[in-house]
Amino acid sequence: MNMRLRSEGYVLFFLVFLFICYPAAVSASGKFAGAEEIRLSAPTQACIACHKAVSPGIVSDWLSSRHAKIIPAEAMKKPALERRISSDRLPDELSVYAVGCYECHSLNPVRHKDNFNHMGYMINVVVSPNDCSTCHPTEADQYARSKKANAYKNLMKNPIYHNLVKTITGIKKVENGKLVSQPPSEMTLRETCLGCHGTKVEVRGLKKVYAGSAWGEITVPDLTNWPSQGVGRENPDGSIGACTACHPRHGFSIEVARKPYTCAQCHLDPDVPAWNVYKESKHGAIYASKKDDWDFGAVPWVLGKDFNAPTCATCHVSLIVSPDGEVIAERTHDFGARLWVRLFGLIYSHAQPVSGDTSIIRNKDGLSMPTAFTGEPATKYLIDGAEQDRRKGVMKEICRGCHGTSWIDNHFEKLDNTIKETNEMTLSATQLMVEAWEKGIEDISNPFDEEIEKLWIKQWLFYPSSIRYASAMTGAPDYASFKNGWWELSDNLRKMRNRIDIKEHIMKHQSE
Amino acid sequence: MNMRLRSEGYVLFFLVFLFICYPAAVSASGKFAGAEEIRLSAPTQACIACHKAVSPGIVSDWLSSRHAKIIPAEAMKKPALERRISSDRLPDELSVYAVGCYECHSLNPVRHKDNFNHMGYMINVVVSPNDCSTCHPTEADQYARSKKANAYKNLMKNPIYHNLVKTITGIKKVENGKLVSQPPSEMTLRETCLGCHGTKVEVRGLKKVYAGSAWGEITVPDLTNWPSQGVGRENPDGSIGACTACHPRHGFSIEVARKPYTCAQCHLDPDVPAWNVYKESKHGAIYASKKDDWDFGAVPWVLGKDFNAPTCATCHVSLIVSPDGEVIAERTHDFGARLWVRLFGLIYSHAQPVSGDTSIIRNKDGLSMPTAFTGEPATKYLIDGAEQDRRKGVMKEICRGCHGTSWIDNHFEKLDNTIKETNEMTLSATQLMVEAWEKGIEDISNPFDEEIEKLWIKQWLFYPSSIRYASAMTGAPDYASFKNGWWELSDNLRKMRNRIDIKEHIMKHQSE
Amino acid sequence: MNMRLRSEGYVLFFLVFLFICYPAAVSASGKFAGAEEIRLSAPTQACIACHKAVSPGIVSDWLSSRHAKIIPAEAMKKPALERRISSDRLPDELSVYAVGCYECHSLNPVRHKDNFNHMGYMINVVVSPNDCSTCHPTEADQYARSKKANAYKNLMKNPIYHNLVKTITGIKKVENGKLVSQPPSEMTLRETCLGCHGTKVEVRGLKKVYAGSAWGEITVPDLTNWPSQGVGRENPDGSIGACTACHPRHGFSIEVARKPYTCAQCHLDPDVPAWNVYKESKHGAIYASKKDDWDFGAVPWVLGKDFNAPTCATCHVSLIVSPDGEVIAERTHDFGARLWVRLFGLIYSHAQPVSGDTSIIRNKDGLSMPTAFTGEPATKYLIDGAEQDRRKGVMKEICRGCHGTSWIDNHFEKLDNTIKETNEMTLSATQLMVEAWEKGIEDISNPFDEEIEKLWIKQWLFYPSSIRYASAMTGAPDYASFKNGWWELSDNLRKMRNRIDIKEHIMKHQSE
Repeated sequence: MNMRLRSEGYVLFFLVFLFICYPAAVSASGKFAGAEEIRLSAPTQACIACHKAVSPGIVSDWLSSRHAKIIPAEAMKKPALERRISSDRLPDELSVYAVGCYECHSLNPVRHKDNFNHMGYMINVVVSPNDCSTCHPTEADQYARSKKANAYKNLMKNPIYHNLVKTITGIKKVENGKLVSQPPSEMTLRETCLGCHGTKVEVRGLKKVYAGSAWGEITVPDLTNWPSQGVGRENPDGSIGACTACHPRHGFSIEVARKPYTCAQCHLDPDVPAWNVYKESKHGAIYASKKDDWDFGAVPWVLGKDFNAPTCATCHVSLIVSPDGEVIAERTHDFGARLWVRLFGLIYSHAQPVSGDTSIIRNKDGLSMPTAFTGEPATKYLIDGAEQDRRKGVMKEICRGCHGTSWIDNHFEKLDNTIKETNEMTLSATQLMVEAWEKGIEDISNPFDEEIEKLWIKQWLFYPSSIRYASAMTGAPDYASFKNGWWELSDNLRKMRNRIDIKEHIMKHQSE
Repeated sequence: MNMRLRSEGYVLFFLVFLFICYPAAVSASGKFAGAEEIRLSAPTQACIACHKAVSPGIVSDWLSSRHAKIIPAEAMKKPALERRISSDRLPDELSVYAVGCYECHSLNPVRHKDNFNHMGYMINVVVSPNDCSTCHPTEADQYARSKKANAYKNLMKNPIYHNLVKTITGIKKVENGKLVSQPPSEMTLRETCLGCHGTKVEVRGLKKVYAGSAWGEITVPDLTNWPSQGVGRENPDGSIGACTACHPRHGFSIEVARKPYTCAQCHLDPDVPAWNVYKESKHGAIYASKKDDWDFGAVPWVLGKDFNAPTCATCHVSLIVSPDGEVIAERTHDFGARLWVRLFGLIYSHAQPVSGDTSIIRNKDGLSMPTAFTGEPATKYLIDGAEQDRRKGVMKEICRGCHGTSWIDNHFEKLDNTIKETNEMTLSATQLMVEAWEKGIEDISNPFDEEIEKLWIKQWLFYPSSIRYASAMTGAPDYASFKNGWWELSDNLRKMRNRIDIKEHIMKHQSE
Repeated sequence: MNMRLRSEGYVLFFLVFLFICYPAAVSASGKFAGAEEIRLSAPTQACIACHKAVSPGIVSDWLSSRHAKIIPAEAMKKPALERRISSDRLPDELSVYAVGCYECHSLNPVRHKDNFNHMGYMINVVVSPNDCSTCHPTEADQYARSKKANAYKNLMKNPIYHNLVKTITGIKKVENGKLVSQPPSEMTLRETCLGCHGTKVEVRGLKKVYAGSAWGEITVPDLTNWPSQGVGRENPDGSIGACTACHPRHGFSIEVARKPYTCAQCHLDPDVPAWNVYKESKHGAIYASKKDDWDFGAVPWVLGKDFNAPTCATCHVSLIVSPDGEVIAERTHDFGARLWVRLFGLIYSHAQPVSGDTSIIRNKDGLSMPTAFTGEPATKYLIDGAEQDRRKGVMKEICRGCHGTSWIDNHFEKLDNTIKETNEMTLSATQLMVEAWEKGIEDISNPFDEEIEKLWIKQWLFYPSSIRYASAMTGAPDYASFKNGWWELSDNLRKMRNRIDIKEHIMKHQSE
């Protein structure tokens, strides 16, 4: 079904291309020096020949990428800690060319339902983690096990969360004075919950689109829920995840992924205020003040040399070494691998789940939740104390790069206390909620759609997250205090109490 | 009435000035190399002679400006796409000197009610868009047609909006237990609504002010509502607008105007969360991570060479060309010229108005609103479908620099859907509002001052804006979801329903 | 009790260290050129010998510091305006070495209850402002007089504020359907209010901690409420304050302190939105756009040369001079020294207190508040009109660097008006609150824990701060308008009115 063109003649196209079409790209401090030695495959040359006019931005992005600057065969000769390719060996045809358009967009065509004939070349629209795993199998494997990769399923296949999603994003109509909710549209889901979680991208068939005056109409796959760069995207090749959520097309920059703005796209207040807290923390202040002196591209990433305060990636993802080359933390693309507790998104904070697929969890009441309504953990599906300690130990080693033991121990003891106290504040809210349900003041059949229920949701989905992140990063005390923190947590309980009283009063006196 | 001094002797004052008074200004990487050839007019020399001591900051700002680095006669020799002066010819007296203090502050003295004798020179306090149009007529003309230039009138001459302004910013007193609103003060208006919209600056007369120990008291115009840099400022020469809203005095930097912080001064949540959404979007993350490698001063602005992700200016204002010099989008200073719908500030999203002066609009009920209460557009005053398509086409060409057709089409189809759905959510709120008014629960005589009315306002002024911007930029999904997005849009309807029920109950039982 | 080791043999350890252990640290553009001339004391050499492996991050931080680059004896030879050491003379033993680990951590051992034997050296865990005063006595003296240094006491020793703290941060339990508040835990206080205000750090005794595989268990002081970098920290040597709140360990960077991110750690919305307003102001937009061209390390800080728009430090702290060397503002580390009014944190805005210790203030009703309930100032404890004018004059001189007199005068007249109007809006809320208390709708015994009381608190603690900061910086008009500004101030009064009416109704009809 698909036709592959791989040129055997090594054309020094790149050199010519750079100097004729993109002279400016080279002028910037010799960045592309040495570029003349990079060979492009014939199909990639063909891609660029058109696309430098049709979509010059992505060609420029790619030119700025490591993929355009070193061939895999050379990259694999690097010392172990410096290597960015985790595969032990690559197909010859991929090793000797720059990793160009065709190298990525032509992989695994049989699996790709979005494979199609584009100007004589069989290519895929979507490059998936499975495609990237050709050179980066360790990263792809780790990622596939993460909650991120499973984020679509974890949300949409869990009946409780799915109900929450529908209740929030469905259009509400007024019928006979009553609010009636309709199911949310796919397009609204795509830009709300699934904007971060990822969509399910399927191929409906082919369609014609207008590709600009030079080309007129062309035929391309007709994809559902596209575009999407959500972390748990379900791809037309059956794989899950999107590397481009953090490494944006087509520069695939490690610098961008290591800077906190990338994480900030999704980890935002009020539900996940990681970025909000970080940027107002001491670490964040040092980052913002000094980042221009740091090297965000270095592999391995040397603490005290390449950076002097952590970003998100430092603690959660990157390979960190000391100035004398000792490994402080191994690289992981399972973003939960250095975490022992879940701080956000659920009724109670609890131990990390064993599997990144959390839709399999059942609590003691048989519901797809990691804790019972009263907080008891679904232990079987969560990591045990030993594993929690092991992971906490990994994190502490990173802290130890700059902090003493007493400092670190007191810090994490404080976080433990914060989890305990915020869980207690959730329990109090849950007790009030139960009172409202038992008295018939609100209706548990949908626990997410009435006024007191919405206050209850805020008590576990918004406010504790602020406090826990402020605790976890010891910073931005306003987020623990006034800004969606303890102020709201306390005020909200009072509001719940008062709303129950008012509604109860009206119920009673209505019936008089 | 006014005395002009224009030196015929070309004094190389600038060189001497720079090297003697501001040695440091030159040391920074030869930025001012060539400065020695710039001639200053005699009046400007006189200005600087004092002001480098009296207000050194603005002299330094000006030294950093293009105005200080090239004389108009030279600037006009640039190739068409590189030219920043849109006038075809300039008065000789302005062409051969740097564009200094006196060149701008002495223009059109007859029109300027703020013209006054300052140390022997007749100058204006306020430099207006009409003055700037001497060299930049195209930009001034475009701007004058924009909603921005008309922002003062659009707000204050529209009785409905004016009522909203008064209701929000007037001091409230408690009289006999009731809240009574007073008219807002001019000073509070200046720093709230008119901080962005601009004030009406008029000349009351002259006054004496203390100008520091070296000068003692001097006489200056006594201006109302001053200072103000709001976009729709009404100037003492009768013109409207303030170029300095985006090009801050006295550097008038294109770099500053192109960076999103400038737009962020006004386009903030909760009512206009453009900046909030942008900075947490994929485009914003790339901007924040890579901006130091980009060139924000280049004219024309080359996509893929000078920048790799858009800022506000890229899509809405700047002259964008491809790396091979083809124009992708013409420059416009009518900020709505590439827009087909209005996303914020009004009860329903609707087609852009034909005129930047929206105070002329009348809906079918004769009110100064672009839609009826139920959403029907005041078609006569709004651009038609063909013009909407044309403008959308201009925007799509910019997207096409980096994205394929299918991507772009799906994106804008999604935005259309978002507008439709958020408008429906507003309609539901309006229906509840009407119920409250009809039942006498709240009083429509001022539709903006009671509790349920304020919930209704949030339903169209705050929450849909979050969602629409998140849609328009496909990013920051939290703004579409939890952060003033669908969460609030749904919760708020429920709150409106409950407040109506409570107030109705009290009304009934009070009278028992 | 303590043993001091001071080497007489000047070992060129630093050079060796740098080139062998930290080769990369030197490669960055010769930053450490000349480093070979810096002598390290023998104890500091010993510290570094281990800590470059144990905690390489802090060694790297210190290497980046001025402390590592110039010995005090040389630093004291600088011209007066350039000197960063305010002491007239130093002990010889401190003058001739780099200010290294031991130089700071060994000072004043008798005062330091946290002094302990660490690997043979008697050191203190906490370096306090009193220790820093060895070289920086003027800064330490100024700071000690500030509200910042007294921030722990001002909050925790004032019964009214202490009650507010407890009410917000205490865990709430549901007992028989009622909310019951428990006292807050020390750990929660540490990361909420005391995160900014500072904690009381005391020595409980000694404890053993695990210091990593190389060292095993070591004995260290067991400190309460540690770590803490809050501005009013009470230290184990009896001193108050933490220089590291703004000059982070161990780089002690003036650049970091001058950039606004440092202030942003605490001066955040909703209660103190200084940073939020600044970054969306004109000054903030210029800062964000142009800061990379500025010099944040220069002493003195030259307006128009080192920077072209102010950061927090410019107006409130730094020594500012004009390009021709005239002093515009003297340096002060009493952060209130250039302020004449308090804009935040109290029921009404009022004149600055005379003493940084505000716990001594008594209003006419004998309460520890700077105003009476109705706004009358506790005059005796507040600066008078003459002192207010003097301080405003200092601030105006800074404005005058870039702005004319009329501009400046109008600006501050506007701020005065804003203070007056926002105080009036607070008074209206207070009148409603009094009604609620007098009618028994809520209980004044704790004025901070019920629903209407919490609305009242927002009316003085959150919303006026937004407006006043937007006024004080003439920027971010959304903060004065919609974003915790006039919108909320007006809406909140209406909410208070309605909650009183609802609760009153229920009270009446409940008893029927």
